[in-house]
Amino acid sequence: MSAPFTHVLRVRYGECDPQGVVFNANYFAYFDVALTELWRDAVGPYTEMMEAGVDMVVAEARARYLGPAWFDDELAIDVLVTRLGTTSMITKMSVRRAETVVVEGEMRHVFIDAAAKRKTEIPAYIRRALERYLAAEESAEEAAWSTSA
Amino acid sequence: MSAPFTHVLRVRYGECDPQGVVFNANYFAYFDVALTELWRDAVGPYTEMMEAGVDMVVAEARARYLGPAWFDDELAIDVLVTRLGTTSMITKMSVRRAETVVVEGEMRHVFIDAAAKRKTEIPAYIRRALERYLAAEESAEEAAWSTSA
Amino acid sequence: MSAPFTHVLRVRYGECDPQGVVFNANYFAYFDVALTELWRDAVGPYTEMMEAGVDMVVAEARARYLGPAWFDDELAIDVLVTRLGTTSMITKMSVRRAETVVVEGEMRHVFIDAAAKRKTEIPAYIRRALERYLAAEESAEEAAWSTSA
Amino acid sequence: MSAPFTHVLRVRYGECDPQGVVFNANYFAYFDVALTELWRDAVGPYTEMMEAGVDMVVAEARARYLGPAWFDDELAIDVLVTRLGTTSMITKMSVRRAETVVVEGEMRHVFIDAAAKRKTEIPAYIRRALERYLAAEESAEEAAWSTSA
Repeated sequence: MSAPFTHVLRVRYGECDPQGVVFNANYFAYFDVALTELWRDAVGPYTEMMEAGVDMVVAEARARYLGPAWFDDELAIDVLVTRLGTTSMITKMSVRRAETVVVEGEMRHVFIDAAAKRKTEIPAYIRRALERYLAAEESAEEAAWSTSA
Repeated sequence: MSAPFTHVLRVRYGECDPQGVVFNANYFAYFDVALTELWRDAVGPYTEMMEAGVDMVVAEARARYLGPAWFDDELAIDVLVTRLGTTSMITKMSVRRAETVVVEGEMRHVFIDAAAKRKTEIPAYIRRALERYLAAEESAEEAAWSTSA
Repeated sequence: MSAPFTHVLRVRYGECDPQGVVFNANYFAYFDVALTELWRDAVGPYTEMMEAGVDMVVAEARARYLGPAWFDDELAIDVLVTRLGTTSMITKMSVRRAETVVVEGEMRHVFIDAAAKRKTEIPAYIRRALERYLAAEESAEEAAWSTSA
Repeated sequence: MSAPFTHVLRVRYGECDPQGVVFNANYFAYFDVALTELWRDAVGPYTEMMEAGVDMVVAEARARYLGPAWFDDELAIDVLVTRLGTTSMITKMSVRRAETVVVEGEMRHVFIDAAAKRKTEIPAYIRRALERYLAAEESAEEAAWSTSA
């Protein structure tokens, strides 16, 4: 069982809504930031992959909101890769505020040939690099997602 | 089977990313806008409900991305209420670009007492108003969500 | 003296901050939306100009905040073109909530050759089209801006 | 002449637009982040001031865009306080990408009594704390702004 990659960020004022808490959609932007940082750590700058003609598109995204986070809170986002298919990847996010998980998320990305805009196999060097954060976790729900990739 | 509520909006430049398409997180902001407009149509201005001490928080959100949408595209967002529990509501969104569905989404909201920040029963007048867009649709996946509310 | 172009939009929940009002940065996104709509009205879809190889970049932007606007408010944004230089354009925005001006803004855009990313003369057909909303207004401050374009 | 406070942040994918560069409005969100961090450094967490019943609202904001910044760029934002009036403060921002200044900005904030929503004198302890980053800089343009506060 791998340890997750963790990225820490601080909640910005403009990301919070009149309820005083992070607006729900902004967590998906946080997931994207955390994945970019996992990339830097495991694979290299995301832009290098793009320059090599490989990109990713989001196929599915979900979040479960368990509690609020406020302006200026430090949030730790744990990311695990839970599936590496032929052309797609599932990641699982867990957003912690102090010791409490406030949001759980999941994303499915599909690798594409940036020029042709068609899905493409995950390059071998990326697969190897991502295995560092791969956790072979299988729930009924994830299995359902997996069939589509 | 009810007809969905439909809200049409236009993609803003700043909502698109370097791939030229709507950034994935922004669809969740669109869902929120569409729900606000459904409210205006079925219940009344959302702010009136808030002034009456009732609010909602998002408990779950998900999206499946089927195709891209670009800057200046007109998107039609169909919304159906697929479950009205005691304290929670599930809505289903379908985002169309021309005749093509580009994104499907789902949200689960929980009604709260705005002052106490505790969940509260859906007020009867809101329940009645929302029934207009209620579609009694049950899939395995939705059933799973429903149990938690 | 020309009448301004007016675009009406509604404040979204996620655009408001913990003070309950539109977050200051979001007005600049509103200005951009209003300008896109002025374009549609006067010139044609902005995307058509882009396809013809012409684009604009923002060189300066400013806003003066006179009062708040809240979630679900309808805002009317008046736009006037206050200067059409050789390669640049200055526009003036006025955001009204009911009959009250809540924000005044100004932007200076520079036309660029989209491929070469270099500034280019405003195409004649665009200049003619924009003259419809041109108000020959000159203040000391604007004159200062104008010298740089 | 004081040295500025510097905050470094990394450009997020969703903050960039179809031109591939940071969308103009997002720099105003960056200014806000940098100011929050200056606060933490000089005064203490911004939330503490809010809890003490003091808040700020933005009265004016402007930016001059000198060059682009791209996804994943590290940007250094230098902030100086250029005026501390009785109830208002002017700050000057300079956004650097590597050694190049890409955006210059300026903001005028007004201190308010958070409950009464009326402007209030800058508390003495905050004034003293901010003097650390105060640069007595006066241009014709700033002088014009200053008169209004």
